[in-house]
Amino acid sequence: MINISFPDGKVRQYEDGTTALAIARSISEGLAKKVLAVKVNGEVWDATRPITTDATLNLLTWNDPEGQNTFWHSSAHLMAEAVESMFPGVKFWVGPALEKGFYYDMDLGDKKMTEEDLLLLEKKMNELAKQGNKYIRQEISKADAIKYFADKGDEYKLDLLQNLTDGGITLYSQGAFTDLCRGPHIPDTGFIRAIKLTSIAGAYWKGDEKNKMLTRVYGVTFPNQKELDEYVLMLEEAKKRDHRKLGKELGIFTMDEDIGPGLILWMPNGTVIIEELEKLAKETELDGGYKRVVTPHIAKENLYITSGHLPYYADSMFPPMEMDGEKYYLKAMNCPHHHKIYDAEPKSYRDLPYRLAEYGTCYRYEQSGELFGLMRVRCLHMNDAHIYCSKDQFMQEFKAVNDMYIKYFKIFGIEKYVMRLSLHDPAKLGQKYINEPELWLETEELVRNVLIETGVPFVEVKGEGAFYGPKIDVQIWSTIGREFTLATNQVDFAQPRSFKLSFTNKENNPEIPLIIHRAPLGTHERFIGFLLEHYAGKFPVWLAPLQVKILPISDKFLEYAETVQKQLKKAGIRVEIDDRQEKIGKKIRDTELMKVPYMLVVGEKEMNENKLSVRRQGKGDLGAQDISVFLENILDEIENRKSGEETAAVTA
Amino acid sequence: MINISFPDGKVRQYEDGTTALAIARSISEGLAKKVLAVKVNGEVWDATRPITTDATLNLLTWNDPEGQNTFWHSSAHLMAEAVESMFPGVKFWVGPALEKGFYYDMDLGDKKMTEEDLLLLEKKMNELAKQGNKYIRQEISKADAIKYFADKGDEYKLDLLQNLTDGGITLYSQGAFTDLCRGPHIPDTGFIRAIKLTSIAGAYWKGDEKNKMLTRVYGVTFPNQKELDEYVLMLEEAKKRDHRKLGKELGIFTMDEDIGPGLILWMPNGTVIIEELEKLAKETELDGGYKRVVTPHIAKENLYITSGHLPYYADSMFPPMEMDGEKYYLKAMNCPHHHKIYDAEPKSYRDLPYRLAEYGTCYRYEQSGELFGLMRVRCLHMNDAHIYCSKDQFMQEFKAVNDMYIKYFKIFGIEKYVMRLSLHDPAKLGQKYINEPELWLETEELVRNVLIETGVPFVEVKGEGAFYGPKIDVQIWSTIGREFTLATNQVDFAQPRSFKLSFTNKENNPEIPLIIHRAPLGTHERFIGFLLEHYAGKFPVWLAPLQVKILPISDKFLEYAETVQKQLKKAGIRVEIDDRQEKIGKKIRDTELMKVPYMLVVGEKEMNENKLSVRRQGKGDLGAQDISVFLENILDEIENRKSGEETAAVTA
Repeated sequence: MINISFPDGKVRQYEDGTTALAIARSISEGLAKKVLAVKVNGEVWDATRPITTDATLNLLTWNDPEGQNTFWHSSAHLMAEAVESMFPGVKFWVGPALEKGFYYDMDLGDKKMTEEDLLLLEKKMNELAKQGNKYIRQEISKADAIKYFADKGDEYKLDLLQNLTDGGITLYSQGAFTDLCRGPHIPDTGFIRAIKLTSIAGAYWKGDEKNKMLTRVYGVTFPNQKELDEYVLMLEEAKKRDHRKLGKELGIFTMDEDIGPGLILWMPNGTVIIEELEKLAKETELDGGYKRVVTPHIAKENLYITSGHLPYYADSMFPPMEMDGEKYYLKAMNCPHHHKIYDAEPKSYRDLPYRLAEYGTCYRYEQSGELFGLMRVRCLHMNDAHIYCSKDQFMQEFKAVNDMYIKYFKIFGIEKYVMRLSLHDPAKLGQKYINEPELWLETEELVRNVLIETGVPFVEVKGEGAFYGPKIDVQIWSTIGREFTLATNQVDFAQPRSFKLSFTNKENNPEIPLIIHRAPLGTHERFIGFLLEHYAGKFPVWLAPLQVKILPISDKFLEYAETVQKQLKKAGIRVEIDDRQEKIGKKIRDTELMKVPYMLVVGEKEMNENKLSVRRQGKGDLGAQDISVFLENILDEIENRKSGEETAAVTA
Repeated sequence: MINISFPDGKVRQYEDGTTALAIARSISEGLAKKVLAVKVNGEVWDATRPITTDATLNLLTWNDPEGQNTFWHSSAHLMAEAVESMFPGVKFWVGPALEKGFYYDMDLGDKKMTEEDLLLLEKKMNELAKQGNKYIRQEISKADAIKYFADKGDEYKLDLLQNLTDGGITLYSQGAFTDLCRGPHIPDTGFIRAIKLTSIAGAYWKGDEKNKMLTRVYGVTFPNQKELDEYVLMLEEAKKRDHRKLGKELGIFTMDEDIGPGLILWMPNGTVIIEELEKLAKETELDGGYKRVVTPHIAKENLYITSGHLPYYADSMFPPMEMDGEKYYLKAMNCPHHHKIYDAEPKSYRDLPYRLAEYGTCYRYEQSGELFGLMRVRCLHMNDAHIYCSKDQFMQEFKAVNDMYIKYFKIFGIEKYVMRLSLHDPAKLGQKYINEPELWLETEELVRNVLIETGVPFVEVKGEGAFYGPKIDVQIWSTIGREFTLATNQVDFAQPRSFKLSFTNKENNPEIPLIIHRAPLGTHERFIGFLLEHYAGKFPVWLAPLQVKILPISDKFLEYAETVQKQLKKAGIRVEIDDRQEKIGKKIRDTELMKVPYMLVVGEKEMNENKLSVRRQGKGDLGAQDISVFLENILDEIENRKSGEETAAVTA
């Protein structure tokens, strides 16, 4: 008998050689139907693999990222089986799971795969899935494996085998398909109940353009049709809401070959949004007792040696400029500059918490292949701040930062979020992480406690901390359910030491402060990219680049339109007149395309009665209003930063 | 007889060989007493030098920069004569006029000069000045000059002679002193009636630290004692108002060895001023129809080849960063980035004038020896904008920019200003200036006409234009009479061509726009440096980092102080409480030192009557006021950006 420990702390005895699936079944048949894989002593296994020692067990279902990962990797094998049946002689390279779905790279010889083939493949996969074929794991010696694939004439798997060491090599088979694979896999193909092959692409073997071009087929699968349907809908919606497409159509941002990749030029409309976001941040931070600073974008090499950026973070930095015998670097973070401001005047406990905020612009090197619209860029405008506090103050300050996040989520209608507590990896101390094992554990515990006490939803991840301390990444979901990693909140015990920062405590002794690095609105780049998708470009009035467009029915009413414009402008509203010689229908359509929240149609009747015909973007005609009434409503909407939803009530 | 043309256009006949001094005397004895030098056909001459051909004549007096220049250079010779009499055997290197005053570098052998010597030298100079010795010009062959200085054993003048060509070499003598000098000089030493030697410094021969260290004596002279007294007073006041001293005391800015020279760290108090200035600029520019943009701080080499920066301006740029096989440069100006935004969407005449504004941060390389506080830095935050307009619109746009300057001058109480029209130098076309001689002349004429028509005071200077077009530098004077070059306004005919910018004109044809580059508030660095001196750190309330300090007489009134603070904060006022356990006298003194505009003393009486005892910085006690009255007054002061002077009336 072996002892199996469960996540709830309970320990039960089972026969030696039992499987996770058998254990699940012993609990309930319903559970067994959900088990995709299992974590045995922290390692992900097939749920059907015999367990022969005492172990801690975590059953993995569709709710676990590792469960989904296993599901999609097994789906790649299922697709390979279908491909092999339709394209005999096909050779496979690798077929990993992705964040969402999977792909497999394959050599089709002189055959070609078309979009129509994808439908046939889907059909075949569904057929094979219904057979409920088991995924069977088989350990094999390296020699036998080489013989197997040599006989098959599969040079790709032989190539993979070169880098594998004897003893840990496995084959997996399901139905008529066998693959070299380290697993794990789901119990059988019957779990896969909804299948969509999304695209075909070319991919050079090993990513090297000197090699042969392989065929890559992407797909995604789900345990039920409903989830697939929702996903397909979300993809279509996301395509419409693509921030690159909307960003261009709405004049938000552009890029230019002569400036360089990943370097955003913010157009006038995008800059309005930036300034509104900065205004919100400044107001919030003023209330929170922050002081603002402005620092240069470069510094000498020595600063980044002290800070730890060059030892631990150099790969993400731009190359140096050599000047006057010194190396200067573009800053990748604002922290070292802020530390210098903290240190410019002596500090006492009366000055703490000392909170320095800056919309600092940082430069980070990303591989050009990694760059993506506003989501992955090289120039980042960060809603940054650093809070220098004593250990006593830490809890309250950290909580205040969390509250700020939640305040923002509310303003932007972000309903789903999770905080991701990223910890250090003890194996990488001194390489990726400052080598202070005890301080790591101490501050990780500190942060964990705040999260537990404040009741914020969070998950823990090992090996994703900042180099100077544990980090909280905030993940949020847009209205259409796409996930974004946005803001961070970090604790730093390392830099205060390396910069020799201190304050005089109440006992008149020098003490080292803790530092909280925080960026609740993340970067302008990623946040505006998110907002474009989140609002589908239909920004709430306070954020809208153009808030009101006045549409005179003909030139006769231009003068009246100008009187109205003047009044709105005086109240600080962003307003333009459409003075083109176009029919009113076209004026309305064009303004809707530019997603301007309010249209004010003015003609004979409106002029005579000193009124406006108000149209709300997406809601249509709201009828005639007095200018003063319209002004009061829109100013209320702007000042209270109301979302479009709340607006409906106001203007209906 | 020769024909002499005067500035008023009149032409008169004089004897061949007459002098400017004689001509002046023929007009009036009073005039003759003022003539320091003369411009003959555009070249500055001794007023005593015989004129032997027809010529145009400009008599130069103390009111002309060239007159002052000649005066100070002659004063350097006078000082040299005094030094030679006190330090026989002294050898002289060069002794130029400065912007204000002069210096002379000398080799005193093994003797040393002390501060006390300066007083003796002043006395000697006064004695020699009173003798009214004439400055006598003598042409000499190179051979004779070499013989003269070789006999004297003067290796310094022999060194200078090496680079002179025969034919234009002159000696100048006054009293017992003779010098190798190309002149010109004032008629006699009697003009010099007020003398001050200001300092002694060391200076390496030819600025090379491998050479011998010479002694440099600085001085300044005036035609009367009153001007000298005023100047000395201004220097003392300027020392008190030194922006580096005030900047540190008031927590405005700091620098750090690890960041690098010329790279300002703006502390919280400085950042408040920055944000108020930006707010003013944004309001003004919004009214002026500008759109705002945000651009990155770097771009690829190719952008700066196109713009002309690398061909014409590389010395002022930071060295490149090499990345992904490309060179990236920090931007020294924002223009090329703005051009790319202009060009991102097609433009028609309906879009023009298209005005793009940005508080852009630029990086310029200045020699480390040239760096000076906030006045010469390497990182500049510019109040920048670019106006793209047609030729028809140019006049009005350029005038609007001038009006904006004048609006700002009024807000900041700048009463004296001059615009300096900087033109190209035809000799440097293709080197320092874009090689388009006709476009230069055309745009220079365009700008000159606007200046004449708007009646703004201006002077013309050859050879100081930007590389892409003529430039207006705006010179302003602080309250204590010091001169600052601050803002610029430039016309650009070159970049629209090199960037292939265009718009569709009314006739549906492509047309090239003109560009106006303008920066009325200059850079934060220089402008805040100027303001620190201008206001002696006593900022008007709207600019003051801390606007109000509440001083409770004892802890008993802390609660009342907090109630007051809350009300003021709610109204957006920057307010703090001095909650230290100090006597009220010390609290007042410390607050005055920090130059906080308003102090509100609260004690028993104030608390009971719900009032405040109001003290105004520099004006003392203004008596007790209701909170509402104080609030109304201070908000009026802030909203209307009143200067301290206007305030007196409001609060008295």
